Amino acid sequence: MAMVGGGTGAFIGKVHRAAVQLVGGVELVAGAFSSRPDRSREDGARLGLAPERSYASWRDMLDGERARPEGERVDFVSICTPPDLHFEVAKACLDAGFHVMCEKPLTRTAAEAEELCACARRAKRVFGIMHPYVGYPLVKLARDLVARGELGRVAKAVVVYPQGSFRRIDWTKPLTPRQQWQRDPRRQGISCCMGDIGVHAANILEYVTGLKIRKLLSDMSRFTGGALDDDGAAFLRLEKGAHGLLLASKVSTGEANPLRIHVYGEKKSLFWRQDEPDLLTVSSPFAPMETWSRGSAYVAAASAAAARATRLPAGHPEGFIEAFANNYRNFCDTIRAKRERRKPTALELDFPGIGEGVRGMRFVEAMVASSRRGNVWMPI
Amino acid sequence: MAMVGGGTGAFIGKVHRAAVQLVGGVELVAGAFSSRPDRSREDGARLGLAPERSYASWRDMLDGERARPEGERVDFVSICTPPDLHFEVAKACLDAGFHVMCEKPLTRTAAEAEELCACARRAKRVFGIMHPYVGYPLVKLARDLVARGELGRVAKAVVVYPQGSFRRIDWTKPLTPRQQWQRDPRRQGISCCMGDIGVHAANILEYVTGLKIRKLLSDMSRFTGGALDDDGAAFLRLEKGAHGLLLASKVSTGEANPLRIHVYGEKKSLFWRQDEPDLLTVSSPFAPMETWSRGSAYVAAASAAAARATRLPAGHPEGFIEAFANNYRNFCDTIRAKRERRKPTALELDFPGIGEGVRGMRFVEAMVASSRRGNVWMPI
Amino acid sequence: MAMVGGGTGAFIGKVHRAAVQLVGGVELVAGAFSSRPDRSREDGARLGLAPERSYASWRDMLDGERARPEGERVDFVSICTPPDLHFEVAKACLDAGFHVMCEKPLTRTAAEAEELCACARRAKRVFGIMHPYVGYPLVKLARDLVARGELGRVAKAVVVYPQGSFRRIDWTKPLTPRQQWQRDPRRQGISCCMGDIGVHAANILEYVTGLKIRKLLSDMSRFTGGALDDDGAAFLRLEKGAHGLLLASKVSTGEANPLRIHVYGEKKSLFWRQDEPDLLTVSSPFAPMETWSRGSAYVAAASAAAARATRLPAGHPEGFIEAFANNYRNFCDTIRAKRERRKPTALELDFPGIGEGVRGMRFVEAMVASSRRGNVWMPI
Amino acid sequence: MAMVGGGTGAFIGKVHRAAVQLVGGVELVAGAFSSRPDRSREDGARLGLAPERSYASWRDMLDGERARPEGERVDFVSICTPPDLHFEVAKACLDAGFHVMCEKPLTRTAAEAEELCACARRAKRVFGIMHPYVGYPLVKLARDLVARGELGRVAKAVVVYPQGSFRRIDWTKPLTPRQQWQRDPRRQGISCCMGDIGVHAANILEYVTGLKIRKLLSDMSRFTGGALDDDGAAFLRLEKGAHGLLLASKVSTGEANPLRIHVYGEKKSLFWRQDEPDLLTVSSPFAPMETWSRGSAYVAAASAAAARATRLPAGHPEGFIEAFANNYRNFCDTIRAKRERRKPTALELDFPGIGEGVRGMRFVEAMVASSRRGNVWMPI
Repeated sequence: MAMVGGGTGAFIGKVHRAAVQLVGGVELVAGAFSSRPDRSREDGARLGLAPERSYASWRDMLDGERARPEGERVDFVSICTPPDLHFEVAKACLDAGFHVMCEKPLTRTAAEAEELCACARRAKRVFGIMHPYVGYPLVKLARDLVARGELGRVAKAVVVYPQGSFRRIDWTKPLTPRQQWQRDPRRQGISCCMGDIGVHAANILEYVTGLKIRKLLSDMSRFTGGALDDDGAAFLRLEKGAHGLLLASKVSTGEANPLRIHVYGEKKSLFWRQDEPDLLTVSSPFAPMETWSRGSAYVAAASAAAARATRLPAGHPEGFIEAFANNYRNFCDTIRAKRERRKPTALELDFPGIGEGVRGMRFVEAMVASSRRGNVWMPI
Repeated sequence: MAMVGGGTGAFIGKVHRAAVQLVGGVELVAGAFSSRPDRSREDGARLGLAPERSYASWRDMLDGERARPEGERVDFVSICTPPDLHFEVAKACLDAGFHVMCEKPLTRTAAEAEELCACARRAKRVFGIMHPYVGYPLVKLARDLVARGELGRVAKAVVVYPQGSFRRIDWTKPLTPRQQWQRDPRRQGISCCMGDIGVHAANILEYVTGLKIRKLLSDMSRFTGGALDDDGAAFLRLEKGAHGLLLASKVSTGEANPLRIHVYGEKKSLFWRQDEPDLLTVSSPFAPMETWSRGSAYVAAASAAAARATRLPAGHPEGFIEAFANNYRNFCDTIRAKRERRKPTALELDFPGIGEGVRGMRFVEAMVASSRRGNVWMPI
Repeated sequence: MAMVGGGTGAFIGKVHRAAVQLVGGVELVAGAFSSRPDRSREDGARLGLAPERSYASWRDMLDGERARPEGERVDFVSICTPPDLHFEVAKACLDAGFHVMCEKPLTRTAAEAEELCACARRAKRVFGIMHPYVGYPLVKLARDLVARGELGRVAKAVVVYPQGSFRRIDWTKPLTPRQQWQRDPRRQGISCCMGDIGVHAANILEYVTGLKIRKLLSDMSRFTGGALDDDGAAFLRLEKGAHGLLLASKVSTGEANPLRIHVYGEKKSLFWRQDEPDLLTVSSPFAPMETWSRGSAYVAAASAAAARATRLPAGHPEGFIEAFANNYRNFCDTIRAKRERRKPTALELDFPGIGEGVRGMRFVEAMVASSRRGNVWMPI
Repeated sequence: MAMVGGGTGAFIGKVHRAAVQLVGGVELVAGAFSSRPDRSREDGARLGLAPERSYASWRDMLDGERARPEGERVDFVSICTPPDLHFEVAKACLDAGFHVMCEKPLTRTAAEAEELCACARRAKRVFGIMHPYVGYPLVKLARDLVARGELGRVAKAVVVYPQGSFRRIDWTKPLTPRQQWQRDPRRQGISCCMGDIGVHAANILEYVTGLKIRKLLSDMSRFTGGALDDDGAAFLRLEKGAHGLLLASKVSTGEANPLRIHVYGEKKSLFWRQDEPDLLTVSSPFAPMETWSRGSAYVAAASAAAARATRLPAGHPEGFIEAFANNYRNFCDTIRAKRERRKPTALELDFPGIGEGVRGMRFVEAMVASSRRGNVWMPI
């Protein structure tokens, strides 16, 4: 494994590294962690890389790794840079023959996303995009309960993702680098809040319901100034006549990271929230509410995917790093299947890939366009 | 006190009666509980009314009570009928010189509501509309914290009211009377879900934020067939540039009555939910989340209205009937002030009145119109 | 209904009055609210009693009421005085032919309690003792689930009742009257914490499990000085080989009133807490945890007693006053049955009576004796 | 790092391996995973060890590693065997010059524990014992708040650890190996429930309060037959006059792993529960309850130890593996300090060591002796 971006000062790079450590059998051996060559190398040294694989730039890295004998070069590259580099770096990785795990949003525009998708298919490389929330075992259980018809026909889904991060900013001081690029359209793309977290909300909604968003009508807001949205909501129409509501925000003062999803079927409903990830509740008008607990035998019996994604018995909390690791594990198993020239199983393929990345960008563009054109319905 | 509608078989009539019992000093002494004369009288007997004040119809009741000597007739009439009768009955009550407490929605149309409002003002009678949720002590605390600027400028409010009541219906059997009129436009008016519970959501939002809804863009749905909506949501624009999101639903399978409100200020946010009414949480990016507990000395110190609405010390749960009773108490105290020819205090006036009833109907009409015209912004 | 003690300044008197208002058909018409004649009469006037039934003392009241023609005197007397008066007042009430509802603890000693019990039986009067917590609908459901064997054989019960009330005292100021008598052995009896709240814990444990405490070994503490305990715990042995643990405290800083009970059967367990009284959880090793919600059809189907004690649909909170009222209602229905010369039903008899009062005093004495003798096992 | 026991079939071995992966810079390179030589080697192979360091027995491993040149042998050995081997293996490791991380309970008897302690001091090796719960960041915050006097003088602590694991056993089938040794006095030692989980409860209580248990009076039970206790509770006397209550159980049907601790000071109290490890609540009679959230700036400001133990921002759950890893990290940093011939800092020394192991065994012996002698006070 190699990494581009995600240096020792970055939050998300650390999580990627911790996650692959939990997977086992994967090791970070190469990287280009910063756009500044000296800093990139320093970070590589700090992370224990061999000096010759601690590269000054991602281009050097691709050249360097490709030049190594087969079996001694990295299998895949994790891209943890700001969004503006995703397209170029990912394309180069694919062209160089590497599998790719990419941070979201996939690109700055849907057109770029489509092109990257075509590129990945041509290159026949495995491509993952990091939506960690669908890596949680009980999100997989939720999806399996819906798919099996436990809820009856899905009528409605409500997903909310209210963060308060922009309310922690002290505007009298310089922004951090991360805050800077998140608020800069040249780096972040056409949407801040939707590109950063709205895509997670859309992704988990489609994952759990098994239904694609067909069209949406959005209301995007800018509370903290700047060129990009920091808050928004949308009415949704999903496949099979289901409706939806989605909210994402970076100005919900005092909120940490409480992504929540409600799915209402005609017979039952389910609820999951990211800050209590080990629990899933199932409600019915005619029976007590059920709280399913990760690590229990009855969860394993109901969902092979949840069982596979579980490390610890019930009552021993698992968290965000484990969810990340579950995506990585399936991504790596799919790479291994490719190497072994066998078809990956459905369980191995259970991680967000280039298709989800493209959908995410279409979602972002539709959100922005709907608001810009005066809150009109936009197809995805 | 007299009652129209709300016979012994009706849920809401019982709550009104229990609530006034808690107020003390108010007694149900007259009533017309059903449109069927025999049933009306039977209910009166069952409720212990004197036979001569257990009327066959509400018109008889108004005549009968007006004919009694002053001091021996009822002060006010509680109207617990289906919505189609509210306007006519309330108007007649006012014309007959009685104060009125009316169930929501106030009328079937906003025009009727305006007319009733004019009528009440002309008659100089006290007019209450029953939005019980703003009777909860910690909703009053919430309002007072916002008003005092504890949250900073209000940027955003999110109110959701997802009920699952229509998912408990067995469609192979005849509907109950209540279900029938709730789904019948001639009786319920132009909206089912918004008229029934959306008005509560809009009311608590305006009450707590102190900001009026200026315009909205709605998405109304019909999941269970019929002529009227059973679900809907709206983007809101409030006074002073604040934004909002409102959801109300009667098809949220498995949900009981979890009205919830989040208010996000620039400095702090607050959260309250009706099924844990004794708690209010206040969140900030810079300090631990606070959970305020009804009945505590610090709540009393922060909100005279909350203190006045509190019967029991912290840890001894209060509920829905008490919230109802708090509205009744202030309504009755305002009547008493009138009788005593003094100006009611702000604490006494703290109950939803005809003004809130009118706003509710304007909200309902805007919700319906926005959806009908293709999800466009509608002023309120 | 008449009341002794519980004047307008007292917390518990208000709750008794609010509760009977909710019952309906019961009216406070006589009382002696204070040991000071003038104050007693003032309170009577404030509560709207007729002057001739607003008595100067409880003895006057008994004389006065007995002197009234049958049908015009009160049926029962609610005793809300400090514990030192319970025995004398209750005995006199019984001797005068009145039914009695008495606050806990029943008396100061078990011997007094036994004598009062004999007295009540001799007089053939209905005698209630106010343990409100078993009046909650879901406590009744809990009892019924246990009785029906849903949990399997009960192995163990844990009941905790940690209040922090004594940590709210400002010791530099004079104590309130209530604090004074609670801490005075001549008035409170041999135990403060156990007499005041430990008896509730013991009562709910025996009520829900259906098992009597056979013996106990206690550890009583005095953290705030004074002559009496303010905290304690005990190991319990129940009937049928079950074990138990009980904790009660008035020095658990920051706690309001979180009485909680866990019952562990061999197949399932249940949990209820007083500050979320509308919910009961049932846990099993082999299935999702169930949360039963008061007011639901499935609760009514599982427990006739819970259904009867329920006023509102699920999601509309009920509270402490309602629990109180449920005890009063059954107490009053039992009186009515007596008057109608029929046998009260099991549902009507479902309120804590003199037998529970006696058991409470035996429990208190065993707790005190166990600790005094060096933490030894004491039979009850 | 080497491992003894904890083969691929064992729960706890996996957690140790996942935890050191998260620490970074530590690698499992040698091991003897089973008492059966073939199985031991197979496990080593499965875990990717070099064949020559995948030993047939722990004795071979010590010989083999000692024979390697300095710098190429392991630094420390993690002992994950059943308790009966801890003493012998740990002693041999120390004698061979290795640092040791040992699973709890430290030994089978307190005498063995004392001897091992002397041995570790003589050998000047670092010795850790795995009480993972004190590795959670908010447990460290709790300790720091208490130490700083935020709660006032500690009056009382209540710790409960009710597991239901023995209620999941199907007694008609053979026990698993783990269940077998847990219930076998020759392997588990003199106590099952207290040796297995009671020691965690006692450890977290002493860690958070900063007070040692001075004496206790226990009530040990056997609900599921067998030679050893499966449930128990104790009254505690701590240093400085504080009291305590401790409960541990393996028969609390339906419970997973809800270790909980309440500490009641004279001014405030705190509460933490293992199944919501990212939250700590602080209660006072005079202010709203505070919920502190791991990863927040205000937590970092209040506790350097909590900050150091935190990997992710608030709202991104951390779990059991991270708590484990925090102990390992401090243990490894202490080893590094030794290697660098500097004094470890207080933050580095913040992991349970041999002293805590000895106290655990004294606690277990006192618990057993108190019950055997008829529930009498036993000093620790």
